[in-house]
Amino acid sequence: MTSTHHPGDEHWMRLALDLAVQGQGYVEPNPMVGCVLVKDGLCIARGYHHVFGGPHAEVDALQSLRSPDEAAGATAYVTLEPCCHHGKTPPCSEALIRAGVTRVVVAMRDPFPKVDGGGIRQLRQAGIEVTLDVLKADAETLLAPYLKRVRTGTPWVIAKWAMTADGRIATVSRQSQWITGAESRRQVHRLRGRVDAILTAMGTVEADDPMLNARWVDAEGVAVTPPRIAKRVVLCRRRLPSLQSKLIQTADAIETWLFTSPLVDGDRLAALRQRGASVFALDSDDPQSMVRQTLKRLGEQEMTNVMIEGGAALLGSFWDPTSGECLVDEFHAYIGAKLFGGVTAPGPIAGAGLGPIDLATKLTLNRVDRFEDDVRLIYRRVAS
Amino acid sequence: MTSTHHPGDEHWMRLALDLAVQGQGYVEPNPMVGCVLVKDGLCIARGYHHVFGGPHAEVDALQSLRSPDEAAGATAYVTLEPCCHHGKTPPCSEALIRAGVTRVVVAMRDPFPKVDGGGIRQLRQAGIEVTLDVLKADAETLLAPYLKRVRTGTPWVIAKWAMTADGRIATVSRQSQWITGAESRRQVHRLRGRVDAILTAMGTVEADDPMLNARWVDAEGVAVTPPRIAKRVVLCRRRLPSLQSKLIQTADAIETWLFTSPLVDGDRLAALRQRGASVFALDSDDPQSMVRQTLKRLGEQEMTNVMIEGGAALLGSFWDPTSGECLVDEFHAYIGAKLFGGVTAPGPIAGAGLGPIDLATKLTLNRVDRFEDDVRLIYRRVAS
Repeated sequence: MTSTHHPGDEHWMRLALDLAVQGQGYVEPNPMVGCVLVKDGLCIARGYHHVFGGPHAEVDALQSLRSPDEAAGATAYVTLEPCCHHGKTPPCSEALIRAGVTRVVVAMRDPFPKVDGGGIRQLRQAGIEVTLDVLKADAETLLAPYLKRVRTGTPWVIAKWAMTADGRIATVSRQSQWITGAESRRQVHRLRGRVDAILTAMGTVEADDPMLNARWVDAEGVAVTPPRIAKRVVLCRRRLPSLQSKLIQTADAIETWLFTSPLVDGDRLAALRQRGASVFALDSDDPQSMVRQTLKRLGEQEMTNVMIEGGAALLGSFWDPTSGECLVDEFHAYIGAKLFGGVTAPGPIAGAGLGPIDLATKLTLNRVDRFEDDVRLIYRRVAS
Repeated sequence: MTSTHHPGDEHWMRLALDLAVQGQGYVEPNPMVGCVLVKDGLCIARGYHHVFGGPHAEVDALQSLRSPDEAAGATAYVTLEPCCHHGKTPPCSEALIRAGVTRVVVAMRDPFPKVDGGGIRQLRQAGIEVTLDVLKADAETLLAPYLKRVRTGTPWVIAKWAMTADGRIATVSRQSQWITGAESRRQVHRLRGRVDAILTAMGTVEADDPMLNARWVDAEGVAVTPPRIAKRVVLCRRRLPSLQSKLIQTADAIETWLFTSPLVDGDRLAALRQRGASVFALDSDDPQSMVRQTLKRLGEQEMTNVMIEGGAALLGSFWDPTSGECLVDEFHAYIGAKLFGGVTAPGPIAGAGLGPIDLATKLTLNRVDRFEDDVRLIYRRVAS
């Protein structure tokens, strides 16, 4: 029952997708959505979901019209099925119907249980022509983190590493500062500033005593507030952070969640809680099982994007070496213009590794960026 | 005494450089050179050095004129100082003077001892205005292999490897076929088909029994003759190739040079020679010293470009771990869209490695190419 695509549909949907991405980091756990209103071949309004709790894309576009009756007879291009339920804001399907649009083009149906076709049904019942699946693949790529959370209850997991052109994250004597240049490191802070959680392990906490916050600066180097303050999540298998660590010293200001195995010293937890840390006791000390339970819990907290900032050992625990199963969805590999060499210089992913090449994790290359002599490759895991 | 640059000089020199590169693989040990003749603001002729022994770029351009007197009053843009000596062909400086050009713009002086400023001097003595150093840095980048050979007597050394996005050249169980896709592997054959020698070691010969030839195909998949048949150079430290190896089986058709340490079984050399292999006895069994002596010998044979096709151990022997000195000039890192993981999965450069990060080999990124989901990064070593 999908109506045929019209000429120009893809053009306008591309614009709506470009608008949608501007909400990244601000709208989660909502999806990023963009909307363009077109009448007589001209764009009369554009909108996007700016921030969680604020107007949705359709309403944002309608509000930008000089007069509300301008929308009568227009076509609305929306990157995701309009919602049909009362959430933080009234349903968008009703807003479009009231505005008098006569056609709605939707990039993809929203699998969110309270929508899931309901928005499309409402529009059609009101006599509006609805065209589905225009640039659907692009919309799915853009919304992959949201879709994963809605469909599986677990967040989208992003791993990043900086390695030399010969694939090393440190020299044979374990030196690593710096592999990449200033712009690459700024880009990592951009990512930190839009995710819901930064996940690390005690090895990194003890070695680097990191803050794991996002430091954004504008072109003049002045500090800028990032869209989102990521919660800091620490996997504590045997040890716990010291009270003097930067994470615990700042735990009252930035949420710090410790996921502990039964092996940790329970007597120390009260003092950590008193400093502001939250403690989640896991029932296993198996690293992979700890990762699984932690991700499940973060999903229950409606987290959409989780970033791993750990060493090679933590990253390795996101794979099951027997089945090849991988719990990471997206990979940001920064490649610095250096060579370290050496048999014992470590690579980015430790653990047992995948022996038979058929088990190797297959990726698609989504993006290539160059920052001075550094390169960033963004991959996504091919669904197995 | 350099005359001032004119408007348009860089534009025409860029074109001459683009022409020059078309001789790559065909002209060595000569340099690649391009030439553009410009009169009244228009390009009236373009030429380049097509093949060793054939006309130089200036003569190629002059020959393309409808009538020889067209060049009178023209400006010649040449990517390298015109030669002034009788080699395989008569001197280009004389050809330009006879043709009546009134200005010659040169990207860079030729350090070749028989030229080295002599061509420029001849032109000036004939009353021609000569402008030097237009796009000199680009010319030096293009001609780096030629310049290295002329200045140091050793060839330009290119290393290539294929690794996963996590920097592994094989899985923990040593599987490696395939890391990259078909187009990346075709590109490696392109490189093999333009170098003077492909250098390997016995580890690779025994593990892969390779042919080390260049298989070029056109868009229809039909075999095409590459510009150059690389000599196959094998470092033999302890062992020698078997008479049944593909290299020795084809040694009568494709030159196969064995560089042997004093540790090899000298009694076997006669049989290898009889099959067509050439044997060069080195006086050392130290891998780095063997590499140095071999490169020196290849330079004496006027080889310009040498490519390493070996394992991580051979590649590692191109570094001095104490001083950090590196004998490779250019690196082609192919990155496949896969992850292997694992502490023991090997990286591309073995050996002792560089411990202090200050010793790390510094590179500049010359080129980024994408082939499907693979990426090729071409780096050059920053001169130390």
